[in-house]
Amino acid sequence: MLKVVILGSGNIASHLLPAIHQSGVATVIQQYSRSLKKHPINKLGIPVTNDLNALKPADLYVVCVSDDAIQEVTEQITPNTGLVVHTSGSAPLSAIASKHKKGVFYPLQTFSKSFPVNIKSVPICLEAETEDELNKLDTLAKAISEHVHYINSEQRQALHLAAVFVNNFVNHLYHIAFEICVDNKVPFTILEPLIEETAKKALQLGPYQAQTGPAKRFDNKTIQKHVEALKFISQKEIYNLLTHSIQETYGRKKL
Amino acid sequence: MLKVVILGSGNIASHLLPAIHQSGVATVIQQYSRSLKKHPINKLGIPVTNDLNALKPADLYVVCVSDDAIQEVTEQITPNTGLVVHTSGSAPLSAIASKHKKGVFYPLQTFSKSFPVNIKSVPICLEAETEDELNKLDTLAKAISEHVHYINSEQRQALHLAAVFVNNFVNHLYHIAFEICVDNKVPFTILEPLIEETAKKALQLGPYQAQTGPAKRFDNKTIQKHVEALKFISQKEIYNLLTHSIQETYGRKKL
Repeated sequence: MLKVVILGSGNIASHLLPAIHQSGVATVIQQYSRSLKKHPINKLGIPVTNDLNALKPADLYVVCVSDDAIQEVTEQITPNTGLVVHTSGSAPLSAIASKHKKGVFYPLQTFSKSFPVNIKSVPICLEAETEDELNKLDTLAKAISEHVHYINSEQRQALHLAAVFVNNFVNHLYHIAFEICVDNKVPFTILEPLIEETAKKALQLGPYQAQTGPAKRFDNKTIQKHVEALKFISQKEIYNLLTHSIQETYGRKKL
Repeated sequence: MLKVVILGSGNIASHLLPAIHQSGVATVIQQYSRSLKKHPINKLGIPVTNDLNALKPADLYVVCVSDDAIQEVTEQITPNTGLVVHTSGSAPLSAIASKHKKGVFYPLQTFSKSFPVNIKSVPICLEAETEDELNKLDTLAKAISEHVHYINSEQRQALHLAAVFVNNFVNHLYHIAFEICVDNKVPFTILEPLIEETAKKALQLGPYQAQTGPAKRFDNKTIQKHVEALKFISQKEIYNLLTHSIQETYGRKKL
């Protein structure tokens, strides 16, 4: 059994910690939480510390802190035989203090503490410096998820950027649609089949083929009516910019 | 059995025609297609005409033409006892020539000829001028779909605008993510679980609660790195505008 220490107590830690602890191939022996107050034991009965000097010897340290804190936190881990991995899509492998054996264990998913995720379906992107270390991470990742990928730092950063578009930005467009529905007393849930179909169609046909709508067919009358109907300047700007970008993609000048 | 004539041969007609014909409550007796060449009978064995003066008497004329053509096409239908409906999200009821009994039969979904759609799950938004006519449309719609809504012209136009955000614009963001993946030799399909989870989470939590990512947490280091990594000016503009809009939504000034 792999002895694991989890560093962090945010969204990623809250999902990875139980998944690793229940993987059957690893035990979480300790959690580090900067914001620890009076609870030295977490929900799973695992000891929690707020002192980086009190970390236990372990085979694997999984660092689930913000990108900016990776260097500082890993600098304070006393070097031992354990492998130190971060869980960030954006930070390079070298963000981890150079004294350690280093790796990356990046779960490509949107995590909120309050929202359960089926971890089996979360792609886990791995990177390590040696084949042995990669194998160690691979064993753990495959015990947690059905989708394990070997991805280098550059590719992972590209994936993270792509993920911002398909998750953060897509969700913001859902939010704008939600506001339009509320303003016009139409339930947002009417859009549910369309939202699901949009995702399904892009994945099956590819998004280039799946595109439809007034922008693609240069229906300027509808476009103008839509821009006028939008309530906020920022919504109008987003409408115009995305319409323009779709029209560029389909290779005709805007009329 | 309702006798139905379908006018049009585009994406919507290609899905609505068989659905109506196989509904069990209606028979499509004729299709009008402007672009008819030498095939006076369609795939379902239904007679096709390209002459609006040759339309048969029917209970219902379902007009599946572009918004701009609704007025002109319906003007040429000889008035009889039949109800004339259009299928547009954006056009008002009054787009139909005033001499007719008028209605709307708007399927809120993304249709491509080549991509099968489970019509049972497509919301159908109905509008009519009398209760009798609404009942007639309701019977047909419920024989086709499990999601039938009564929606007035103003609400339907808002829904159509919201649909442009959750479908056309979301799909374009998928397209940008696809380009980023191709450029960096990462398979787009790695993003599949994230795309599905994003939709599911927004529908369950609501998009305001579901938002995560560098924009929302004002992680300017990551934002700057992302903008630099994007290849095209139009991608950078979209990234900046959506990031700014998310930051406005969550009520703090951009740092």
